[in-house]
Amino acid sequence: MKIKLYFFGKSREITEREKELAKRIGFRAKIELIALPQAGITDAEKAKSEEAERLLKKIGSKDFVIALDEHGQEFDSVKFSRDLRKKLENHGKVIFVIGGAHGLGKGILNRANQKVSFGKMVWTRNLVRHMALEQIYRALEIAGGSNFHKA
Amino acid sequence: MKIKLYFFGKSREITEREKELAKRIGFRAKIELIALPQAGITDAEKAKSEEAERLLKKIGSKDFVIALDEHGQEFDSVKFSRDLRKKLENHGKVIFVIGGAHGLGKGILNRANQKVSFGKMVWTRNLVRHMALEQIYRALEIAGGSNFHKA
Repeated sequence: MKIKLYFFGKSREITEREKELAKRIGFRAKIELIALPQAGITDAEKAKSEEAERLLKKIGSKDFVIALDEHGQEFDSVKFSRDLRKKLENHGKVIFVIGGAHGLGKGILNRANQKVSFGKMVWTRNLVRHMALEQIYRALEIAGGSNFHKA
Repeated sequence: MKIKLYFFGKSREITEREKELAKRIGFRAKIELIALPQAGITDAEKAKSEEAERLLKKIGSKDFVIALDEHGQEFDSVKFSRDLRKKLENHGKVIFVIGGAHGLGKGILNRANQKVSFGKMVWTRNLVRHMALEQIYRALEIAGGSNFHKA
């Protein structure tokens, strides 16, 4: 079982807490956090489309891609866990993608097999990465029958 | 305008990013982050009720209290901003409360004037504090007419 998480920004933006979460996820599944350079263009649409291009080059035609997007489907933690477990069992590998400062471009949103939302509020890209790691960790702990979720 | 944020845990758990957010919030409103000791009891119900007691002692009878609770009302960032601005204008001060490892006890949930949820998923108490600070910052920036929200 393997999880890849692509984000736009720099590796040094990954905080200690995020590293700790990635380490703990590592006991249940292989996880890789991959930083891609932000487009660095003021025009939001152009930036998003350039970033989408970069991301699409990294994704194989058979990969299962989950886009973290505010307009995606909202799960509770237990349902997200069940769903992620099923995806990992069926595909062996799941790829999460987080947008840059302007969000994800259409190219990648159309390619994504699933869109998941962390509620109605808007969160910055760095915080979304932390939230994603915590929720993936929680999902694997729930699936593994740990009591972390209740604590 | 003043915002107080009570949480259960230790001051040293406040990360650099959270301190940075508190500093930026400080340009628009006074903000105070106040750590209260966790009950440290295994029994979840007893812990929650003891923690609720501690919290209630800190709250004045006229204070406007917003409890961050998964069963609360979900806002989008713009509506949350409008709502928080109104509360700050009407009451001068708003108190946010975040639960300990087991969540908030009934005593404080009943006392709260409003319950706000950050979506359907469960988040750890430390992450909720970070999320709250980011959303309060965003709310004040939106209310202040900044373009942060769009970036």
